[in-house]
Amino acid sequence: MTGIHDENLDPSAEADDATFDARAALLSGHDFWSTRGGSGIRSIVMVDGPHGVRRQGGTADNLGFNQSLPSTCFPPGAGIASSWDPALVREVGEALGREARALDVDVLLGPAINIKRSPLGGRTFEYFSEDPRLTGALAVEYVRGVQSTGVGTSVKHFAVNSQETERMRVSAEVDDRTLREIYLPAFERVVKEAAPTSVMSAYNAINGVFSSENRWLLTELLREEWGFDGLVVSDWGAIKDRVEALAAGLDLEMPGTGDEGTEAILQAVRDGRLDRSLVEASVERLRRLAERTATAADAAEGFDAEAHHALARRAAAASVVLLRNEAQTLPLRAGRKVAVIGELAVSPQYQGGGSSHVNPTRVDVPLDELRGALGDDYVAYTAGYEKDATDETALTLLAEARAVAASVDVAVVFVGLYEEDQSEGFDREHLDLPAAHVALIDAVAEVAPRTVVVLSNGGVVTLESWHDRVDAIVEGWALGQAVGSALADVLTGAVNPSGHLAETIPVALTDTPTYLNFPGEQEVVRHGEGVFVGYRYYTSADRAVRYPFGHGLSYTTFSIEGFEVEAIGSDAATARVTVRNTGEVAGSEVVQLYVAPAPSSVRRPVRELGAFAKISLEPGQATTVSLELERRAFAHWDARGARWWVDPGMYRVELGRSANDIVEVRELALEGDVERPNPLSLDSTVKEWFGHAVVGPALMQSMMANATPEQQDAAAANSNALKMVESMPMGQFARFPGVEIPEEALEQLIALSVAAAEAEPAA
Amino acid sequence: MTGIHDENLDPSAEADDATFDARAALLSGHDFWSTRGGSGIRSIVMVDGPHGVRRQGGTADNLGFNQSLPSTCFPPGAGIASSWDPALVREVGEALGREARALDVDVLLGPAINIKRSPLGGRTFEYFSEDPRLTGALAVEYVRGVQSTGVGTSVKHFAVNSQETERMRVSAEVDDRTLREIYLPAFERVVKEAAPTSVMSAYNAINGVFSSENRWLLTELLREEWGFDGLVVSDWGAIKDRVEALAAGLDLEMPGTGDEGTEAILQAVRDGRLDRSLVEASVERLRRLAERTATAADAAEGFDAEAHHALARRAAAASVVLLRNEAQTLPLRAGRKVAVIGELAVSPQYQGGGSSHVNPTRVDVPLDELRGALGDDYVAYTAGYEKDATDETALTLLAEARAVAASVDVAVVFVGLYEEDQSEGFDREHLDLPAAHVALIDAVAEVAPRTVVVLSNGGVVTLESWHDRVDAIVEGWALGQAVGSALADVLTGAVNPSGHLAETIPVALTDTPTYLNFPGEQEVVRHGEGVFVGYRYYTSADRAVRYPFGHGLSYTTFSIEGFEVEAIGSDAATARVTVRNTGEVAGSEVVQLYVAPAPSSVRRPVRELGAFAKISLEPGQATTVSLELERRAFAHWDARGARWWVDPGMYRVELGRSANDIVEVRELALEGDVERPNPLSLDSTVKEWFGHAVVGPALMQSMMANATPEQQDAAAANSNALKMVESMPMGQFARFPGVEIPEEALEQLIALSVAAAEAEPAA
Repeated sequence: MTGIHDENLDPSAEADDATFDARAALLSGHDFWSTRGGSGIRSIVMVDGPHGVRRQGGTADNLGFNQSLPSTCFPPGAGIASSWDPALVREVGEALGREARALDVDVLLGPAINIKRSPLGGRTFEYFSEDPRLTGALAVEYVRGVQSTGVGTSVKHFAVNSQETERMRVSAEVDDRTLREIYLPAFERVVKEAAPTSVMSAYNAINGVFSSENRWLLTELLREEWGFDGLVVSDWGAIKDRVEALAAGLDLEMPGTGDEGTEAILQAVRDGRLDRSLVEASVERLRRLAERTATAADAAEGFDAEAHHALARRAAAASVVLLRNEAQTLPLRAGRKVAVIGELAVSPQYQGGGSSHVNPTRVDVPLDELRGALGDDYVAYTAGYEKDATDETALTLLAEARAVAASVDVAVVFVGLYEEDQSEGFDREHLDLPAAHVALIDAVAEVAPRTVVVLSNGGVVTLESWHDRVDAIVEGWALGQAVGSALADVLTGAVNPSGHLAETIPVALTDTPTYLNFPGEQEVVRHGEGVFVGYRYYTSADRAVRYPFGHGLSYTTFSIEGFEVEAIGSDAATARVTVRNTGEVAGSEVVQLYVAPAPSSVRRPVRELGAFAKISLEPGQATTVSLELERRAFAHWDARGARWWVDPGMYRVELGRSANDIVEVRELALEGDVERPNPLSLDSTVKEWFGHAVVGPALMQSMMANATPEQQDAAAANSNALKMVESMPMGQFARFPGVEIPEEALEQLIALSVAAAEAEPAA
Repeated sequence: MTGIHDENLDPSAEADDATFDARAALLSGHDFWSTRGGSGIRSIVMVDGPHGVRRQGGTADNLGFNQSLPSTCFPPGAGIASSWDPALVREVGEALGREARALDVDVLLGPAINIKRSPLGGRTFEYFSEDPRLTGALAVEYVRGVQSTGVGTSVKHFAVNSQETERMRVSAEVDDRTLREIYLPAFERVVKEAAPTSVMSAYNAINGVFSSENRWLLTELLREEWGFDGLVVSDWGAIKDRVEALAAGLDLEMPGTGDEGTEAILQAVRDGRLDRSLVEASVERLRRLAERTATAADAAEGFDAEAHHALARRAAAASVVLLRNEAQTLPLRAGRKVAVIGELAVSPQYQGGGSSHVNPTRVDVPLDELRGALGDDYVAYTAGYEKDATDETALTLLAEARAVAASVDVAVVFVGLYEEDQSEGFDREHLDLPAAHVALIDAVAEVAPRTVVVLSNGGVVTLESWHDRVDAIVEGWALGQAVGSALADVLTGAVNPSGHLAETIPVALTDTPTYLNFPGEQEVVRHGEGVFVGYRYYTSADRAVRYPFGHGLSYTTFSIEGFEVEAIGSDAATARVTVRNTGEVAGSEVVQLYVAPAPSSVRRPVRELGAFAKISLEPGQATTVSLELERRAFAHWDARGARWWVDPGMYRVELGRSANDIVEVRELALEGDVERPNPLSLDSTVKEWFGHAVVGPALMQSMMANATPEQQDAAAANSNALKMVESMPMGQFARFPGVEIPEEALEQLIALSVAAAEAEPAA
């Protein structure tokens, strides 16, 4: 029962009912990608993103049965997030919007901003980061970029869609504090700062309630608390009960299911189980969405594929993370002989599988680009491995690779994951590279004078078995269609790498915080790690990692000067720092500010990203950046009080090259949030009573007055006596034989504490 | 509302009511340690255990204000569990029963069998183990031993009382499978096999419901499922709502609270909120308890303190764990010069603080006992440290220790935790030894030819900083009043050590499975690690430990021969193995059998203790032991089906010297539990539909028949397409545009699956 449907009882409303029925019908899609038109509301087209426009020709489906029309494949989330560059994401968003307009698309289904809980997650290649602040900052600009063209966005998947296993049935069991601090903030920020036209509800349940039928999530939190004024659309096929979903705040069912959904809604209205006004509100939101995206619909034009490819290349190069570079192995110097080894250098991997799969306008092949940059004569190539090779072929390929590697100055080995290793629909089961790729690295590293490994992997892989034996490692994540040119740019030094890890590379799968709790069992996944996701876990549990969150090398060096932090009011701060490029080439640095918490009543991570900025500097150039550390950078979610709370006390603001490499620290005293002390009650503990500034001494005095000298001596000898009962509610303790504090005495003491509470200044 | 109180409406019941009121009054205690007598039921005395009888003279309380009467202090749980010797525990139980009789005690409040979730837990010194099977086996014999004397027991603390922090208010958030597999089995086994006279409800809540008011726990599980027929008594002061507690199945409130509890009960009966029959049932249980313990009450006699001390010494020696013994440093050989260093050698620590604290009949001092055994002339002593020493004194003591250590053949350093470091009422915050103790080890190890460290610590301490620099380590846990003689027995070789760790010694606190989830916050503690407690975590997460569960050295060596494992029926097995003492001295070995699970739909620990046996062997002697691996050793709790379940498949039965040192493995195929395949439904996933032996092929055929040749090609090229939607319920998938499987077709296929299910043989 979700409301009273009064009109239902009024026979004069019949004519209205016909138009009402027609309007209600709009709340189920027309087909796979478009909504129904009617009642003065046009049909709108929504298609998959996020890193390209997947506009299908022919019969539409989401199974990839049909190729989509060509569009630029920008770097997927795992790639572009490594740029730590919101301005770049905005540029990409604008380009995506232009392509959507050109392809008659009204709403692009993105950004995908779920937090990477486990590196095994099948869609981590689509998502940005393990950190909500980095995710939120990038997502805001994505939405702003796309929507600046008039095209709508759909922020997804709301919420806690952190795995593919049983994604349609699984319930994520997660506490309020973890929801508020980890899984919701990026959504909150996008909603509040970028006003996305729509939000897509996730397949999974949260604490037993499906996201698509979750009134707390879709109405109380999203609309009432955050002020979202757009449309909520179901993930494709996410709705189990159309009426529950609508009542919870889910406006639009996609894809269409014929008349089934509509009939369910109308029947519920007739039965009085669903308030007619809820239906009208959802239709109104659909109308507003159609209106907001109308300029795009009216302006069908082409897009500049060359310019967009150039942007895709710039974005991809900015996303590459140089993990390791011993003895300045990179950049590759002109005139030296290079062997490019690995089939991925000619058949590059640059996106993952599933609904985000884009049909690119073109693909830059790494080998071709490297030959173009370094000269054909300087670049040898051998395959090294082949997908599904026989054992015999594999051995031949390895032998060839060894021979080629031994004959050059530097071997560049391309390895990674295939599209079928990383896809929507299923999670990975390990973090290993294909065995043939590892064998190739081993073989090459043994004979090559220098070995560079170039990784293309939408999700984290472990580097352990071979890491120390190679000279340089380039993490290419998923780079989109400009993969080849972007990698060539970074390898040759045409672009100075500036990417930083948006997710931790652990030593082994067993080190990950979710190792024993992912992907759950029997349709339940316990978030046993709570807020300790990603680097929050590794730093707090003192667990060694291969490369920490925030790590990334450059071909130049940077120095830090004059780091200052100053409080703003009681609960925020501003930081200033001067960064200088002390090397020989231009480059970009990411200033990372972490906040280490003041002592708290809750268990907080050792540090959390509080602010960041990416800055570009010519050699010798210095610039001073100012970063705001907002209230939320210091706050935790007080679950009991259902509020954000800044503990008073001494915080540390840490300037880091990564979450593990803190180079400067400043202490920061914050007044924080102050509260009237609660008056004591019978449920307050003995510790709280004795610890009370006014009541404690009075209580102790009266208790000891009643004790015999023998008891006083024994109490003095047994210093633990009070500690033993300190967690007992006074109401129970006071009744104990031998304690027996009279009720009147307790009442007097409670009155004392009430008076004391009222005497305090209000917070 | 817990029942209908019909009698309430009948005026002729008034006379009955007076006697009813009197009976109801019996359900609150008379004072701290005794119940009320009346209505033909005698008052009974219940006092703290578990490792001694804490019978207070004078005014009773549980704060230690008053010393209790002397009784033998046997090794606390952390000590005696290391013996892995149920027969020994039974002997101790019998002795405890005799002492209780002698001290006019009817019920001894023990055993304490909570699982050691974190080594920080304040009462871990009272508890047996991190393993429920070891805990259960020992607890059964404890109860049998005590109750063989006519004295009653109270198995505590029921349930999930794994911490002291906020113990009166905290809710343990823990899933059903974890409850059933970790926190409940020891209670279940004791109830089913030893019929304890009473069970004590814990202070804490479980999933939001206080143990003392938890009908599921106290009635449905304990009585209805397990068949408990005894009395449930509250932990002292645990009851918050007397009526709720009684309705839940809590019979007796302790200690007394005057007439408050009785009045609440009577008022609830009068108001019809509480069924009179529940009150009568509780009174009847109290009457039965008084009856069952009547022989003890009638037979007040003394006890043989000397004989009990000798037993305490034997038990303590059997509890010592020899962790490390390089180059046969131990046993100490006669004629060599020994330095005993450390104040704990003259002021030994042998129990923890709180309600279990026993006033011992005597205490054996380690230094005295070593001098007695080795000769005064061969044993030097220096204090090494003093509690609360000034910096200056500390330096002097260290210098003296260094001088003494350098002048002998072997230095034996006594270190450990003080009573105020380990007590009921609060949890520890770290695993460190006192700094002065570590400094002493360092100083001595630097100069002594050989260094032996003797530990006295109720809870785990880390050994890391000094471990590799000493030659031998003796883990003395909490050994009771014979601490000195028992340690001397082991150090000199009068007793060959045979203790094995009942809990893991981790490398560091940060390695413990509960590191970030203990002791919780805001009155909630999340069991994020689930069943992965203790060695179940370390082995499954591949986390290095200092010493694994089950580890323990001996002065002799043992060999293993003829290890055989044979299935019994479909879900159990028997194992046989011959153990030979291949060394020069008599000794005892613990045969440890672990079970590694068959592939399962749930995440199971790498191995779990399945059975064990302790056997004594003369030099050269061999014996063949047979161990039963019961059904439960292979089963997991199927939470969805609310049942124990043995997966069919290949198990491994592992013979280990510890949880990390598996020396022999046998494979074991079990038929396990088989179930009729569930028929398909619209909620079954696409994977389940396509995976169905009969329905799958039919479905695939009909789907591909409708696809265009173009779609068929695209589908073949995109092998992930089906995998992507495999987790989608068929009901949703079938409605997708482009899929559109007609309802009738689905109904036919469901009918097919129903027919297939019925054709299968029943389980």
